[in-house]
Amino acid sequence: MARINRNYEKLPGSYLFSEIARRTAAYQEANPDARLIKMGIGDVTRPLAPAVVAAMHAAVDDLAAAETFHGYGPEQGYAFLRDAIAEHDFAARNIAIDPDEIFVSDGAKSDCGNIGDIFAEDNVVAVCDPVYPVYVDTNAMAGRAGDYDTDTERWTNIVYMPTTSENDFTPALPEVPVDLIYLCSPNNPTGTVLSREALQKWVDYANATDAVILFDAAYERFITDPAIPHSIYEIPGAKTCAIEFRSFSKTAGFTGARCGYTVVPRDLVREGQSLNAMWNRRQTTKFNGASYVIQRGAAAIYTPEGAAQVDETIDFYRANARTIKEGLAAAGLEVYGADNSPYVWCRTPNGTGSWDFFNRLLEEANVITTPGAGFGPAGEGYIRLTAFGDADDTREAVERIKRMLDAESRD
Amino acid sequence: MARINRNYEKLPGSYLFSEIARRTAAYQEANPDARLIKMGIGDVTRPLAPAVVAAMHAAVDDLAAAETFHGYGPEQGYAFLRDAIAEHDFAARNIAIDPDEIFVSDGAKSDCGNIGDIFAEDNVVAVCDPVYPVYVDTNAMAGRAGDYDTDTERWTNIVYMPTTSENDFTPALPEVPVDLIYLCSPNNPTGTVLSREALQKWVDYANATDAVILFDAAYERFITDPAIPHSIYEIPGAKTCAIEFRSFSKTAGFTGARCGYTVVPRDLVREGQSLNAMWNRRQTTKFNGASYVIQRGAAAIYTPEGAAQVDETIDFYRANARTIKEGLAAAGLEVYGADNSPYVWCRTPNGTGSWDFFNRLLEEANVITTPGAGFGPAGEGYIRLTAFGDADDTREAVERIKRMLDAESRD
Repeated sequence: MARINRNYEKLPGSYLFSEIARRTAAYQEANPDARLIKMGIGDVTRPLAPAVVAAMHAAVDDLAAAETFHGYGPEQGYAFLRDAIAEHDFAARNIAIDPDEIFVSDGAKSDCGNIGDIFAEDNVVAVCDPVYPVYVDTNAMAGRAGDYDTDTERWTNIVYMPTTSENDFTPALPEVPVDLIYLCSPNNPTGTVLSREALQKWVDYANATDAVILFDAAYERFITDPAIPHSIYEIPGAKTCAIEFRSFSKTAGFTGARCGYTVVPRDLVREGQSLNAMWNRRQTTKFNGASYVIQRGAAAIYTPEGAAQVDETIDFYRANARTIKEGLAAAGLEVYGADNSPYVWCRTPNGTGSWDFFNRLLEEANVITTPGAGFGPAGEGYIRLTAFGDADDTREAVERIKRMLDAESRD
Repeated sequence: MARINRNYEKLPGSYLFSEIARRTAAYQEANPDARLIKMGIGDVTRPLAPAVVAAMHAAVDDLAAAETFHGYGPEQGYAFLRDAIAEHDFAARNIAIDPDEIFVSDGAKSDCGNIGDIFAEDNVVAVCDPVYPVYVDTNAMAGRAGDYDTDTERWTNIVYMPTTSENDFTPALPEVPVDLIYLCSPNNPTGTVLSREALQKWVDYANATDAVILFDAAYERFITDPAIPHSIYEIPGAKTCAIEFRSFSKTAGFTGARCGYTVVPRDLVREGQSLNAMWNRRQTTKFNGASYVIQRGAAAIYTPEGAAQVDETIDFYRANARTIKEGLAAAGLEVYGADNSPYVWCRTPNGTGSWDFFNRLLEEANVITTPGAGFGPAGEGYIRLTAFGDADDTREAVERIKRMLDAESRD
């Protein structure tokens, strides 16, 4: 008799975005003339850079002729892409990462999910709260989370580190021993960043305790402050304690094209085993490499023209983020993130619950956001807005929210 | 302290193709003028079909303009592809599979590897011997294989089902209870197929014992015999006991483009849980969908012109397979497979060991094959040849092998 992985039964429903979709659809049906502006889901909208498009067309043509055809590629990614990553994302920042420490994949979500394969079931996992749900759910599936407590909305064996305005969005070191620590900077959902000093503290902690940091840098391209690290490997000691996830999704608009990569340094050893060798074995056994066409497209962002085009798109989103942050601040709201991130994290006015404020924004401003509570209990009292929309729509959404709050303050 | 998954330490080296590459490189270096013909690795060489190429170009153009841009797609695959699969791969063969029973992915290797996520660690796994190594290694990583015995070259907790000419390449039902059963037809590496009757026996066994069959149909497009099922769902009862893996790799030359799919019927329930719902949860949590560009390319093989072009390529490989089979049989070798498969499985002459025969073919015929022993102990005494090469090279390779054997018989 086949037995199932019973950890799946413990998972609560994947509620957040489906509930947003349900409420939005219900409102739109009741108000067919309302023009809703979507600032909820963190998906890009700008087209791929022309250099990327040209590279993908050329790669498709490669597959169209026997002489230039590419079959199975290296599971770890093609040298042309791994070399470009090593040079431009690391060497250019004075970080020595070898191409064979880089594993190209179909995206950071896959890697963040699959990385658990190389760790034992009995590790204690620490996450920030609020948190990108994939970190928690994948560990729950693997049996590391214990049981889900519907009262606290937390898993019994996960260590949650509140990350709120009260601690300047910099989580404190945990009071109990932890083994795997997820950090995300620039952060999803809060849009805030971890300073060099904060990261050094975590690296020192991990090295001292033989923990491993799983560092999600999917949004690093949005960093504007020169003092903020783009990679955890800018921090001395990180190579012996950290794995880093990178994505072309937000960097270069690859949410539909699919490509990312993970760095596992050769110096990262636990229980006598190289995690680089283990991840290599995992990927060569359970993965067959990212698409040749897409890897060619990704490599194009490292050309001078590709880099300039990608920067232009990032600047477009950055301008939206500024529009949102400045507009909502002017309307009297407490706003975080945005400076180094496409996400704006906004405290709800007068202690309103985040789902209640979501409803008001939907119904009174016709703007769709994401309730902070959907990212964990410490997200209650916040909403997330994203800068990935049209510039005019973004301005209009901010104006609508301002008017809504003005009208209320006059009541 | 982070603890690793210690099952990885039990894995023997991933030896087969690296050892082939090592021996080949050593020979080539010592004999720089030798023109080696590669019939070892199962990778395609013909270009993508023109309809696929056109669809991929159009999809790249979609991503090049804001109006037609596609960001995150459904993790399960786009409806345009799932609908086409349901219609052409199933309804056209009188099999009712709903699009929401189909999960599009970046390839069958990923799915074959990841499917273990939804099952408990204590399932007993049965595989054919010889076997595609991914089935075994992924279960070893998950702790289902026990320990590797270097004497028997087998894992202590895996049930091996010898699949050789002695049983007409049709494994017998196991004598001990098993829970997860990997079947592959047309088979890699033997190129042989399972009859309707053989599959019915397995489906009945699985339903009677609540086992689950993991059916790998990656090579179904090569089937020529109308009596051989293309899908396990042609067998009554299969929907309550089988998951099927399909691939565009060999069907349409997607080894470098990357796309496949997995069918998990809604009627497949174990321990009260829907495996369709569990796989959906796994994929939505740990995967972000296959590339839009590649899914558009895959959908093009279901158009009339795409289908005709793909058939032409398959016929090209089939002709190679016939050339190999007929040539080697004429040379007095015992040959299997090839009729419904791109693989030819050839018994070594006079009981020669498969690595020894590999060496002779390399050194005396300059033809690279795969030693059967690399696929498991019951593969000893066989070699695998693939039909994915150039037609002229394939003919020449066969002539060289014939000459080698003729010269030997005259000695």
